[in-house]
Amino acid sequence: MSESNNNVEKVVIIGSGPAGWTAAIYAARANLDPLVFPGEAHGKDLMPGGQLMLTTEVENYPGFPEGIQGPDMMIKFFEQAMRFDTRVATQAGIMAGEEVKGGLFTGFQDVAEVDLSQRPFTVKGSAGTEVKTNAVVIATGAKANWLGLENEQRLATSGGGVSACAVCDGALPAFRDKELAVVGGGDSAVEEASYLTKFASKVYMIVRRDVLRASKIMAERAENNPKIEFLWNTTVTDVLGDDFITGVKLKDSKTDEERELALGGLFMAIGHTPITGFLNGQLPTDDAGYLILKDPGRSTTEIEGVFAAGDVADHVYRQAVTAAGMGCKAAIDAERWLAEQGID
Amino acid sequence: MSESNNNVEKVVIIGSGPAGWTAAIYAARANLDPLVFPGEAHGKDLMPGGQLMLTTEVENYPGFPEGIQGPDMMIKFFEQAMRFDTRVATQAGIMAGEEVKGGLFTGFQDVAEVDLSQRPFTVKGSAGTEVKTNAVVIATGAKANWLGLENEQRLATSGGGVSACAVCDGALPAFRDKELAVVGGGDSAVEEASYLTKFASKVYMIVRRDVLRASKIMAERAENNPKIEFLWNTTVTDVLGDDFITGVKLKDSKTDEERELALGGLFMAIGHTPITGFLNGQLPTDDAGYLILKDPGRSTTEIEGVFAAGDVADHVYRQAVTAAGMGCKAAIDAERWLAEQGID
Repeated sequence: MSESNNNVEKVVIIGSGPAGWTAAIYAARANLDPLVFPGEAHGKDLMPGGQLMLTTEVENYPGFPEGIQGPDMMIKFFEQAMRFDTRVATQAGIMAGEEVKGGLFTGFQDVAEVDLSQRPFTVKGSAGTEVKTNAVVIATGAKANWLGLENEQRLATSGGGVSACAVCDGALPAFRDKELAVVGGGDSAVEEASYLTKFASKVYMIVRRDVLRASKIMAERAENNPKIEFLWNTTVTDVLGDDFITGVKLKDSKTDEERELALGGLFMAIGHTPITGFLNGQLPTDDAGYLILKDPGRSTTEIEGVFAAGDVADHVYRQAVTAAGMGCKAAIDAERWLAEQGID
Repeated sequence: MSESNNNVEKVVIIGSGPAGWTAAIYAARANLDPLVFPGEAHGKDLMPGGQLMLTTEVENYPGFPEGIQGPDMMIKFFEQAMRFDTRVATQAGIMAGEEVKGGLFTGFQDVAEVDLSQRPFTVKGSAGTEVKTNAVVIATGAKANWLGLENEQRLATSGGGVSACAVCDGALPAFRDKELAVVGGGDSAVEEASYLTKFASKVYMIVRRDVLRASKIMAERAENNPKIEFLWNTTVTDVLGDDFITGVKLKDSKTDEERELALGGLFMAIGHTPITGFLNGQLPTDDAGYLILKDPGRSTTEIEGVFAAGDVADHVYRQAVTAAGMGCKAAIDAERWLAEQGID
């Protein structure tokens, strides 16, 4: 029945956010015996569990009416993939079942490089594991860009009112009727500021230059919104607050003057960086670095047998549930493609 | 700020499966105060909770490592939408909050007809509620086609080994190493039969005619699969078994001979019927009746302000998580489009 031999994987999944684990759940249930390279611990580009690991309360992933903490949610995804015997590349090699659960979210292996120039493809892990595989699902996600300030990171990871996703977090009670700020001047900064005016008493847009990079229509809408106030030529130099943000330190880039601004919440909108470095340009990306799908309704890419899912190929929505949906598509597309190749 | 008046809804969501409730969760959190027409109770085309209400164990919706019963899952989706004050059209009119919860999945209102020819659009409910709305999300789903046999329906709704989704249910332990059958002769019948050979000891394809309707390459693959046996010119006249299927009664359409065939599971693959009758042809559909999205990666349709999500616009994947992802997209697309119109 099968043309695959024991030395060639059917499908390797790179990444372990909602897209990666959902692809694993579907691939494992389809008897494809998937192998996942989840990434390495915090601080690395590709991190086990993805962006949700940096999130606190998730209110909008459907199925959890009381909400769920981001890391708890990713543990559930992980456990579900394990239930169907997904194998995982760890620092100590490929593991499966209970063995993996012991090392939950520690000691996993990142991908180092891939060779997609011939089939079977080659995937090399950061700890030396090297495998051949008939199909690859790329679900490495996109990292939110941050200012890189210590207090910003501390409050962002502790649910302290600093976020990189207004759609995810803007509706949380903590931000209602507060004065909030959005950092950034592009289309998504304007979208996020506009979105936040639904909840906030006022939204500052902190813009590094003296003009928006956003499209004209978006810029006009923001400029006409009485709840939005622009702070031009302004950068954030520190974030204030112990457990929850109380304000920011600002610097005027023309005068070098510094001042403090009281805030009830801070939203970064200075872009995302899709995690594609390990690909070395083997797949086409758009100007912002996102992988381009061959058919935007599916998961196929320019290279037959290579599928993409989640934020790495989605600059528009970037939600947990959209990423999970794409992971499902990638596994189904991979299964059908493998079957067409006589590999099952 | 807002050009909407109190008599015009911002967004009406039609349908209450994973796509509909997810659209409601996102729309409600974006302060769009959505109104949902969930459909009427069992037996109607558009049924509250959608196809999941006919499902027992769901193992592949990510977030539930132990699995969850389909109806329980839809109650969670519903409760989550209620948490953010989604309004619902019931038989007694529009209700919100605790009032709706009291009548959970009973007495909801279906959509009767819509007028999408001018904005604001008009939506008329089956119990007489009529509203104007700036945006519409169509998430009415697709009904699996069944043979229409009483015992088939009884075993399908009780988890008795009769299913219309091999990808959803094929991997369940009950079907391992059993002799299974797929009813149908099209591409998806072949796909489902091929998928089931991963688990089953043998898969019969019960085909009404003497030839497959499937594409040549798909048909050849099935015909070369040693685990698949074709039963040509054959129809199922009854399904046998008390709590779980034990077999089927078959009739040869050429000889009229009847016989019994022992089976451990029966999978319908005779197509789906997207629920679009209420649209009266106001949106384009493909040959199989599915709504055509303007951009397959998004939720927009040919009519500005009308968005589609879930199985009604997806003939490829039709999974709970893909439908939920599309519902999220539809709400985000609707929110951004409404903001562009100055409606927030």
